[in-house]
Amino acid sequence: MTAPEEPGARLAAVFDVLGPLYRRGVRAVEQEGGMPVGVRAVLDALAGCGPTTVPALGRTLALSRQFVQRSVDDAAARGWVRTRENPAHRRSVLVELTATGEQVLADVRDTERRELGALETDLDLDPGDLDACLRVLRALSTRLLDHPS
Amino acid sequence: MTAPEEPGARLAAVFDVLGPLYRRGVRAVEQEGGMPVGVRAVLDALAGCGPTTVPALGRTLALSRQFVQRSVDDAAARGWVRTRENPAHRRSVLVELTATGEQVLADVRDTERRELGALETDLDLDPGDLDACLRVLRALSTRLLDHPS
Repeated sequence: MTAPEEPGARLAAVFDVLGPLYRRGVRAVEQEGGMPVGVRAVLDALAGCGPTTVPALGRTLALSRQFVQRSVDDAAARGWVRTRENPAHRRSVLVELTATGEQVLADVRDTERRELGALETDLDLDPGDLDACLRVLRALSTRLLDHPS
Repeated sequence: MTAPEEPGARLAAVFDVLGPLYRRGVRAVEQEGGMPVGVRAVLDALAGCGPTTVPALGRTLALSRQFVQRSVDDAAARGWVRTRENPAHRRSVLVELTATGEQVLADVRDTERRELGALETDLDLDPGDLDACLRVLRALSTRLLDHPS
């Protein structure tokens, strides 16, 4: 509808496709691994940043504190995370991965990595295109994180 | 954590950043335009495909039929969409944009386009990178749509 030369048109096109793609990806992950998307996000974040609080997880993941709390409770019931006292804040406990949680996450990631590798080959995606895609998405993500509206 | 040369590593990195980016983008859109993200998605889809049914909207947007129905009801209450009889299926009405809905959507898109244009310039995003990003996201989106798991 808009000429690709118009400023903002390319970025608008990126955002147009992000939503449906993300929702389809989430469904695929949930249906395949049987792990709710919130639990997965929490495990990923804990693996990346180490023990942290529920409010900090919410900020990192851009998810509501309530949703993160439910996901942490779910993961704790499965034995994948546990809480411990926070030396810095008596009322805000730290959440951390258990050894089982680490193993479950590693297994899920291995499976996904194999499937994504097959998809990459199958779709014949250009490595240069993928690198460019990452540069764009990371630049956007950093900006939107730095300047939450 | 994984060497970028490993098959699937680049694609895994793309999916890692998609979720937080999408959720931050959704928040920004909702807080700025005051239009719930579901209503916006419905208006976009109707502008793209013309009058259609709620189940078809759900499939296109990868959103649940219930969520789409609530968003359609919300948009109808604002006077942005209306329903009319479906010649093909007596029990599944067609949803279509009203003139007001078209105008509201055009205004929101104009504002966004200006802001995205400024962001594109500000982040100094390479047009070639953006084109590559679109190729990747569209290829993924098409595949996940064709083979819903």
